[in-house]
Amino acid sequence: MERIINHINENKDNYVIELKEFLRIPSISTNEENKGDMQKCADYVERKMREAGLSKTKVFQTEGHPIVYGEWLGAKGKPTVLFYGHYDVQPVDPIELWQTPPFEPVVKDGKIWARGATDDKGQLFVHIKSVEAYLKETGELPLNVKFLIEGEEEIGSPSLGKFISTNKNLLKCDTVVISDTSLFQPGIPTLTYGLRGLSYLEVEVTGPDRDLHSGSYGGAVANPANVLIEMIAKLHDKNNKIMIPHFYDDVLKLTNQERENFKKLKLSDKAFAKEVGVKELTGEKGFTTLERIWARPTLDVNGIWGGFTGKGAKTIIPSKASAKFSMRLVPNQEPKKIAKLVCDYLMSIAPKGVKVKVTNLHGGYPVITPLEHKATKTAAKAMEKAFKKKTVFIREGGSIPVIATFATILKVPSVMMGLGLNSENLHSPNEHFDLKHFHLGILSSAYFMDEFSK
Amino acid sequence: MERIINHINENKDNYVIELKEFLRIPSISTNEENKGDMQKCADYVERKMREAGLSKTKVFQTEGHPIVYGEWLGAKGKPTVLFYGHYDVQPVDPIELWQTPPFEPVVKDGKIWARGATDDKGQLFVHIKSVEAYLKETGELPLNVKFLIEGEEEIGSPSLGKFISTNKNLLKCDTVVISDTSLFQPGIPTLTYGLRGLSYLEVEVTGPDRDLHSGSYGGAVANPANVLIEMIAKLHDKNNKIMIPHFYDDVLKLTNQERENFKKLKLSDKAFAKEVGVKELTGEKGFTTLERIWARPTLDVNGIWGGFTGKGAKTIIPSKASAKFSMRLVPNQEPKKIAKLVCDYLMSIAPKGVKVKVTNLHGGYPVITPLEHKATKTAAKAMEKAFKKKTVFIREGGSIPVIATFATILKVPSVMMGLGLNSENLHSPNEHFDLKHFHLGILSSAYFMDEFSK
Repeated sequence: MERIINHINENKDNYVIELKEFLRIPSISTNEENKGDMQKCADYVERKMREAGLSKTKVFQTEGHPIVYGEWLGAKGKPTVLFYGHYDVQPVDPIELWQTPPFEPVVKDGKIWARGATDDKGQLFVHIKSVEAYLKETGELPLNVKFLIEGEEEIGSPSLGKFISTNKNLLKCDTVVISDTSLFQPGIPTLTYGLRGLSYLEVEVTGPDRDLHSGSYGGAVANPANVLIEMIAKLHDKNNKIMIPHFYDDVLKLTNQERENFKKLKLSDKAFAKEVGVKELTGEKGFTTLERIWARPTLDVNGIWGGFTGKGAKTIIPSKASAKFSMRLVPNQEPKKIAKLVCDYLMSIAPKGVKVKVTNLHGGYPVITPLEHKATKTAAKAMEKAFKKKTVFIREGGSIPVIATFATILKVPSVMMGLGLNSENLHSPNEHFDLKHFHLGILSSAYFMDEFSK
Repeated sequence: MERIINHINENKDNYVIELKEFLRIPSISTNEENKGDMQKCADYVERKMREAGLSKTKVFQTEGHPIVYGEWLGAKGKPTVLFYGHYDVQPVDPIELWQTPPFEPVVKDGKIWARGATDDKGQLFVHIKSVEAYLKETGELPLNVKFLIEGEEEIGSPSLGKFISTNKNLLKCDTVVISDTSLFQPGIPTLTYGLRGLSYLEVEVTGPDRDLHSGSYGGAVANPANVLIEMIAKLHDKNNKIMIPHFYDDVLKLTNQERENFKKLKLSDKAFAKEVGVKELTGEKGFTTLERIWARPTLDVNGIWGGFTGKGAKTIIPSKASAKFSMRLVPNQEPKKIAKLVCDYLMSIAPKGVKVKVTNLHGGYPVITPLEHKATKTAAKAMEKAFKKKTVFIREGGSIPVIATFATILKVPSVMMGLGLNSENLHSPNEHFDLKHFHLGILSSAYFMDEFSK
């Protein structure tokens, strides 16, 4: 193991030079004009895997952008790890706010600045480099590895689900490792072991067949905007509990261990409030801020519209009013079941005199990899060895749909060994990645393989 | 009186010829290019007053369009009636839907078709013609009359309030008579004796200083759209009562007589619902449809907006959400007092973690001319004589701000001797006016002067 670590430490600067090459390819998946760059970038990833010493590599064409696969399966009887990542990046607008061009990476203040630096080229690269260190030094790996690097993550991974379904055997593994999340704080090894899911609905309330004069008709006709408001208001009580019958039935309670872990992170509500520009935080009664955003379901109106929204005063009863709202779900809530509960409830409280239409726009499963799982424990230990600090266990309030796909189709847990920082401007101008975390990530990945093989 | 009536009957056709002249002038007050027509139209009205035999007429210039004044004050010791009307008309768009050109009046099916026919040229003309009939036949009137005909009603009467305030003595009178409303049904003499007022507010709720990711922040931060919804929902109870403290304190109760009168009108809820395209009517518990729209205050959301309103699903907590809402007021509610009550209540229920801003956009006083008032009783009797049917007494759910101005500044009641029909396409293509009602209107006006002089 010492040889591997030394190899990684000695090649620190070379890794940065190679990462720069990777970052120079403008692999913006949403732009039609970058289609050629997507292929170029996939080929680059495949070449790097080959150079690292993987025994088999392949670029798979899809209906969208290519998927890159690689494997080394020479460790008979040992477990198999699947490394997942994505080589596509977000668009660069507004380009004028970049201090250096997005596809001309520069190193400054110990960070590398370019689109894709932290999301996700820099993060996925650590696993290619740790595998390379092993194969270059010893000619073998302590376990079997597979790589699955897609080019459509930033556009919702339209081809990936089908690819995983039709290549179940090829992708068979014991755990997935993903580096596409963030450290809780700089220098603190962090494992994200839970994500929230989503159920996203739209509701439309229709009243009269045209906008009516509120003088001539006000008082006699149900106003769709008022009705919509009253219906949505009924979805919460005053303690911010969600009032849909059976909504909480499948919610996995936080363990005492988890509540302890969250408490130890000492999040400052005051600093959090300041960061988002509000005077104070609010939320479901009986829970702390981290519990609320990581482990409790929520219901937020994402948009609402209806009637006259221009300047001044127009006295109408609008014909229609609509809202989009979504629930963040937690294990073990099921998006389809929740959508049906909400829909049924809304229909049950819809008053006479209006038509109510509810559309299920979108859903995603919540995921959790138990703290006691071997993969979680091993990853924590590996990161501790690299970072020389105690690993913290966090969850994340958002969703990473592919992890639910791995859980559902491959039936394996995912370890989120995130190395970025929320402050590293992913999706914004001046994206960057701390090279200290890049280096510690390669070490963590190497330690993980060593530990997981035991 | 018989001579007067005969004169009116004999000149029936001439009145239509003259009304056509009046209707040919495209006096669209909102169009800059019709500015010359506005002056022309004002001059036409003044000429018609002079020809009718008024002793003094004058066109007053204002900052906007001219106001035409006329008087005959030869009946010493007798009461004075002020006839109010407006010579300006609505625009004609969409012009392609007119079956005959809007400013080329034609008579068809006993109706005259042109922009302004019912609103308000045809209606105001009846009073000029009734005065003319008296003066031509007898050389005098049984009482004193004044005319106040403005050219800015369709654009909110910006110059009228100031004109009335600075000409209080000139306009001094015992009652105002206005023909600018509708008959309850064709051929049924109708007096509108009450109007609702208005208090129009806008409320803006601000949360975080930018839209937030609903995954990363949902549950910890008050969502301005949810807060706005919850606040507005609190303004009504389940019986559609308005829940703002002291809101109903000044509401004048309907008398038994009024409830009886409304009941006799036999409004069909089913037909009303069908007309606006809803399955059934709803409203404040304990009141009939006509009571709800004519004599009860209401609160309607006129517009609401916030967050993501495009296609698909965007998972944000919006930074802001806003709504416009307005209350129709009834005698004796005061718009300013009501606006303050609502504002205070909203601020009192605003939760922590958001900023709430309430703006008072607009207000208007409700009005009522008591059924027992001499002017009301006389007008009812006059219309009965002309129409040979019993007069019905209605209120109107909308507002006519000038009537509140007369009540406040001149301290006199207004009699709304409407002769139009709601179905006569005022403000729409193919506006028309039933010539039967035009004729009965001239007779009603003549009978009114006779009766009111007693």
